[in-house]
Amino acid sequence: MITRLNHVAIAVPDLAEAAACYEALGAKVSEPQNLPEHGVTVVFITLDNTKIELLHPLGDGSPITGFLDKNPSGGIHHLCFEVEDIADALARLGECGIRVLGDGKPKTGAHGKPVLFAHPKDFQGALIEFEQE
Amino acid sequence: MITRLNHVAIAVPDLAEAAACYEALGAKVSEPQNLPEHGVTVVFITLDNTKIELLHPLGDGSPITGFLDKNPSGGIHHLCFEVEDIADALARLGECGIRVLGDGKPKTGAHGKPVLFAHPKDFQGALIEFEQE
Repeated sequence: MITRLNHVAIAVPDLAEAAACYEALGAKVSEPQNLPEHGVTVVFITLDNTKIELLHPLGDGSPITGFLDKNPSGGIHHLCFEVEDIADALARLGECGIRVLGDGKPKTGAHGKPVLFAHPKDFQGALIEFEQE
Repeated sequence: MITRLNHVAIAVPDLAEAAACYEALGAKVSEPQNLPEHGVTVVFITLDNTKIELLHPLGDGSPITGFLDKNPSGGIHHLCFEVEDIADALARLGECGIRVLGDGKPKTGAHGKPVLFAHPKDFQGALIEFEQE
């Protein structure tokens, strides 16, 4: 069911500094993109096999503000696995006793596709997003 | 210089439970492998484009014991980027003012290849391994 790692999201306190750092290491770095409906500004680092998303809070109530309060230097925020069928993912997570964040239903994610997040306490402490491709 | 994401390492308190969880989600899961010289037991999750390494401490002085003490549920421990030339990676990190852990020289990593780790404080709070392919 899990097919590919879509991206690794890293919350960063300074987007320009983080982007410059990856650029100096020879990675392909996008311009910052504001996603106001998701409360983040994102810089995409395109690698040969997957991508890194550098996230910075945008506006009030950003979902990563609390993470940066706890981790002022930044840190790895979540992984996103691609799945063929989000309903199947939801069912399998339930069978494994893994809770889903929010109201338990898939939402439209930052890439415009159906997503859900598993509860880190039920998933080895890692925040994992599942995205239907 | 950075080419691919080689793996994401997740430190887990219970390797069998974590492996069963990924298996139930339809991922390809290896048998546990002891790497005594690196102080870890590893289960590999093979995805279509990269891999996840589930790490559990092995023996005294494991490099991930402290991490699990601080994060008892587990958590995302590090990312590993592939590079063409580890000496070039070391030079570029130095030019960016990014410190390298240990004595500052590449070591032989868990896959038998030259590696180095950048200091998380200098790299957006994320522990990043560079591995020469």
